[in-house]
Amino acid sequence: MTKRGYCLKKIGVVTSGGDAPGMNAAIRSIVRLAHSRHLEIVGFERGWEGVMNNTFKPLGPRSVSGIIGQGGTMLFTSRCPGFKRREAVLKAAENLDRNKVVGLVVIGGNGSFKGALALSKETDTAIIGVPATIDNDVFGTDETIGFDTAVNTAVSDIDKIRDTAMSHERIFIVEVMGRTRGFLALAVGLTVGSEIILVPEVKVETLEIIKIIEESIQRGKKSNIIVAAEGVGENRALAKEIEKHTKSEVRLSVLGYSQRGGTPTARSRFLACLFGDKAVDLILNGEKNKIVGLVGSKITAVDLKESAKSTKQLDLRLLQLAKELAV
Amino acid sequence: MTKRGYCLKKIGVVTSGGDAPGMNAAIRSIVRLAHSRHLEIVGFERGWEGVMNNTFKPLGPRSVSGIIGQGGTMLFTSRCPGFKRREAVLKAAENLDRNKVVGLVVIGGNGSFKGALALSKETDTAIIGVPATIDNDVFGTDETIGFDTAVNTAVSDIDKIRDTAMSHERIFIVEVMGRTRGFLALAVGLTVGSEIILVPEVKVETLEIIKIIEESIQRGKKSNIIVAAEGVGENRALAKEIEKHTKSEVRLSVLGYSQRGGTPTARSRFLACLFGDKAVDLILNGEKNKIVGLVGSKITAVDLKESAKSTKQLDLRLLQLAKELAV
Amino acid sequence: MTKRGYCLKKIGVVTSGGDAPGMNAAIRSIVRLAHSRHLEIVGFERGWEGVMNNTFKPLGPRSVSGIIGQGGTMLFTSRCPGFKRREAVLKAAENLDRNKVVGLVVIGGNGSFKGALALSKETDTAIIGVPATIDNDVFGTDETIGFDTAVNTAVSDIDKIRDTAMSHERIFIVEVMGRTRGFLALAVGLTVGSEIILVPEVKVETLEIIKIIEESIQRGKKSNIIVAAEGVGENRALAKEIEKHTKSEVRLSVLGYSQRGGTPTARSRFLACLFGDKAVDLILNGEKNKIVGLVGSKITAVDLKESAKSTKQLDLRLLQLAKELAV
Amino acid sequence: MTKRGYCLKKIGVVTSGGDAPGMNAAIRSIVRLAHSRHLEIVGFERGWEGVMNNTFKPLGPRSVSGIIGQGGTMLFTSRCPGFKRREAVLKAAENLDRNKVVGLVVIGGNGSFKGALALSKETDTAIIGVPATIDNDVFGTDETIGFDTAVNTAVSDIDKIRDTAMSHERIFIVEVMGRTRGFLALAVGLTVGSEIILVPEVKVETLEIIKIIEESIQRGKKSNIIVAAEGVGENRALAKEIEKHTKSEVRLSVLGYSQRGGTPTARSRFLACLFGDKAVDLILNGEKNKIVGLVGSKITAVDLKESAKSTKQLDLRLLQLAKELAV
Repeated sequence: MTKRGYCLKKIGVVTSGGDAPGMNAAIRSIVRLAHSRHLEIVGFERGWEGVMNNTFKPLGPRSVSGIIGQGGTMLFTSRCPGFKRREAVLKAAENLDRNKVVGLVVIGGNGSFKGALALSKETDTAIIGVPATIDNDVFGTDETIGFDTAVNTAVSDIDKIRDTAMSHERIFIVEVMGRTRGFLALAVGLTVGSEIILVPEVKVETLEIIKIIEESIQRGKKSNIIVAAEGVGENRALAKEIEKHTKSEVRLSVLGYSQRGGTPTARSRFLACLFGDKAVDLILNGEKNKIVGLVGSKITAVDLKESAKSTKQLDLRLLQLAKELAV
Repeated sequence: MTKRGYCLKKIGVVTSGGDAPGMNAAIRSIVRLAHSRHLEIVGFERGWEGVMNNTFKPLGPRSVSGIIGQGGTMLFTSRCPGFKRREAVLKAAENLDRNKVVGLVVIGGNGSFKGALALSKETDTAIIGVPATIDNDVFGTDETIGFDTAVNTAVSDIDKIRDTAMSHERIFIVEVMGRTRGFLALAVGLTVGSEIILVPEVKVETLEIIKIIEESIQRGKKSNIIVAAEGVGENRALAKEIEKHTKSEVRLSVLGYSQRGGTPTARSRFLACLFGDKAVDLILNGEKNKIVGLVGSKITAVDLKESAKSTKQLDLRLLQLAKELAV
Repeated sequence: MTKRGYCLKKIGVVTSGGDAPGMNAAIRSIVRLAHSRHLEIVGFERGWEGVMNNTFKPLGPRSVSGIIGQGGTMLFTSRCPGFKRREAVLKAAENLDRNKVVGLVVIGGNGSFKGALALSKETDTAIIGVPATIDNDVFGTDETIGFDTAVNTAVSDIDKIRDTAMSHERIFIVEVMGRTRGFLALAVGLTVGSEIILVPEVKVETLEIIKIIEESIQRGKKSNIIVAAEGVGENRALAKEIEKHTKSEVRLSVLGYSQRGGTPTARSRFLACLFGDKAVDLILNGEKNKIVGLVGSKITAVDLKESAKSTKQLDLRLLQLAKELAV
Repeated sequence: MTKRGYCLKKIGVVTSGGDAPGMNAAIRSIVRLAHSRHLEIVGFERGWEGVMNNTFKPLGPRSVSGIIGQGGTMLFTSRCPGFKRREAVLKAAENLDRNKVVGLVVIGGNGSFKGALALSKETDTAIIGVPATIDNDVFGTDETIGFDTAVNTAVSDIDKIRDTAMSHERIFIVEVMGRTRGFLALAVGLTVGSEIILVPEVKVETLEIIKIIEESIQRGKKSNIIVAAEGVGENRALAKEIEKHTKSEVRLSVLGYSQRGGTPTARSRFLACLFGDKAVDLILNGEKNKIVGLVGSKITAVDLKESAKSTKQLDLRLLQLAKELAV
């Protein structure tokens, strides 16, 4: 019962998996829009762990004041391997039912949506995914919350590394995050003007890389920057191999966890606002088990199941364009 | 004649009107892609002035080294009111013909594209517009080069102002650029979490503004930020009016020219890469008098004439969303 | 009485006047060091207003978690003109005595230290000033908390404006904060490489300014940036005058409140850590009515009275150096 | 002979060793001030290599336009192990004499100053060192050009990592540059509010580190950040050890080459302006074989020899303060 004198429907929100900049902005959007559409909101803490253990707190418009620009997540997060066991999922489902949560918004990436799919099979609660991950590898959306921020963080780091590369006339391999997918490496490589981009989706032979660099030096380039996703393999060995062949100094720089944090860019906040809006709408419209997304310039939704079973394609033409631009 | 032993087709590139971050990245993209597609490139300096006065320099892949991350434009720019006279346009057309320029890529905004349209009527040279302006008001593209950078610059400034607003529990009116259109104000206002957004497209009464702020204070907000486009009118008078009614301190902060400069964001660079690619392709395909653009997730082109005669619509639903998010 | 079983001495902390980046870092330093030196700490809210009205809250190590990098002040602040009246001061003194506050650390600038001096005459509580203001005009310290941050914010803004200045080959007057003193303008002007610096301490004739700019253009400079403190007078009129004489476009850009906020630089945080340390030490050593400061590379203290009565000198040799560097 | 009709004295400038942000600002300062004091200037390229091989270019006020805010060095740089051989030094000395260079300003760090000392014994040319290194380990100056920038770059990265640390309630070890000295780690650790700082100068047992972290968790800290200089040893092993004992997730993040680049902070530029001024003055005053420096608030000079033979002390009291602040 509320002051308004009638029962509010209750929804939950949870952040899960690796944190991404803009998660807080998404929480704010969901909480405030749900509130103004007369829903009650609770926030589960520490990802699936919180849903399993029923640790949550009530959230209102003032609980999310001033977080739109903050990295991380006020609800904490975790990777929760235990959620792969069915008992864990059942316990979470039970908690949602007992708390009369009509909809649960899960802010996270592919791993979290696998859990969401499993959960959706055991509960009547509508499970809605809001894609937030710096990997940008969620099927059903052109872009995830946090991706634009991570790209800009890496670009800004590499702009600095370029200073050293130029001053020392060196070759740099810069490793960005991305264990299995190259969305981040591709966007970063293209926009820092890197000479070569290495992504897990495309195998490039070391000799081919060396040839490209040698030609680039012959064309008068003072420095060469290779942007490589961490998933492409042994970048330290690659550095040594290139050094051996080109007789140039080669350095490896691994961009670390700062790619995952920081104040979100305007675009990451923007997506967070819009995705939150869509998520709340879906619940109010009685839709279930969807992932919201940006497709072209529209905010849309696909089935959780479809998203989980499909693989988002990397635009290989951009790789070709980057190559041509490095001329 | 070139070293390759055959005649290269020649294209020109020019930046015109107010500068925008990413213009250099667009020049780089056009020059390098035109080069690798066997075109010769010249850069006209200082906007239409350079085309009129035939002041240009040859450009090659090395002339654009290291500029992808630099604000401003290496070709200089100017607003050129003289280009409204027909003689000026004829002189420019004559120069293009005499120099055997088969295509001219004009990087700029609406004002520059008006000139481009006039010029296109007097020459056989293909005129291709690449939209680059922080105003984002070009019909035919969802987003212009430089817009994302300007939004982020303003957001980052206002995040700082929010510190003061919170600490002093004050109301701030922050004026962002936009004499006639509110794209920048809307994107900025939404992503800083401003309490009110004022755009030239929508008239809001002062009493309505005061009412919103008073309610916001009653709901427990410690600070209020109004984001206003410069074109909405007398923001200083508004500040005084609000101060009188609410008895709260109100400050006006006008964000200045820094919105127009700075290192472009990844997204502004990304658009520059893709727009440049499209512009060169259009010329090679014999297309004429077009403006390239991003529509949804596709790079497209519309007629210069259509773009010049149409007005890009502001998405008013976002205004409504911002209001709901400020609850 | 505390858990430790003995009476802790209690100190207070308050932020007053205009906010400055690093105030939070100073609060954190004072609270944590006072705590680890077995003092109890209360925070008065909203500057002198809080001391007058006895509105305070207890502070411990966890209350200041995560604030070292946040702009603004968690204790809120205000300019409090009412504190010029003796009754107000007496009331504040009475509150300090009644609360058994043995020392009060006032974080602020000259205005706040005037209040501190008045208060020190009416109470036995030790009043210790920690200089935090972007104006850097406090006698007794080479540098204040927040100054380095404001300088960098302005430099970063002007670096962006330089892009536009270069691209349009324009003259810019950039107005930075500083109603009566030129510390900020001088540091900013020197480090952005501005062609002219105008400070309230030194009168420069308009014709002299015009002559410098004309010579600079003759030496081949593509753009000219004049950095002016807000206190030097009518910068808009100056812009028009220069435009009239040089026939160049001149633009005025007033850097606003963002100079006062934002995450503090390492140096502003560093000073905050050290000043807080010294302030707590002074109280523990029974010293009274001092302002802590950085002199050379030492952290020192001067009498409140001496600081209030003396004027910090601007190093005019730096003005001369800036001029020579703009050659 | 010059246009002025009399012989100018000629000086040289060279950047050597690892690049540091502000080297360009120092070149600008030296070139412009030397020019306005009627000296001719040449820039040797690629560090000692350029002096040995006599590769240089003339520099004037316009050659250094717009570089005050650029990272890296327009003169290129190199570590030049060959300069340890006496023949190399003699060849460099011969070039200086043959070119009638009355003074050579060497911008670099300790390694470069060792070379400078060797060179000074073989030539009459005055050798003047300008300390520029992110390591801040040069005896004779409180601070080197580039140090403040590197500190801020690392602080800004760690502020982002803190977001992830908080959201995941994790422990992070962040490795910053510093193979033999801990100046950078200490300044960074203090100003990010790290729980532990590890520097090469002070041995801390792993069990001691674990104890500190366990107590910190007991006091309610949600995250722990250890800032470690790269020279302290096996940080990856340390991470595993802590993980084993505390059962908390521990991550290692190695901040890379971005610490060495980027636009210099105002303070790094400021030192560059002042050090350049002093260097030119020393040459004009007939002084020889000195290193300029900041001591307290004064710009001073010490003998090259003294600087090379002495070790700059780390202020261990700051380590103690950092510990107390992490309470």
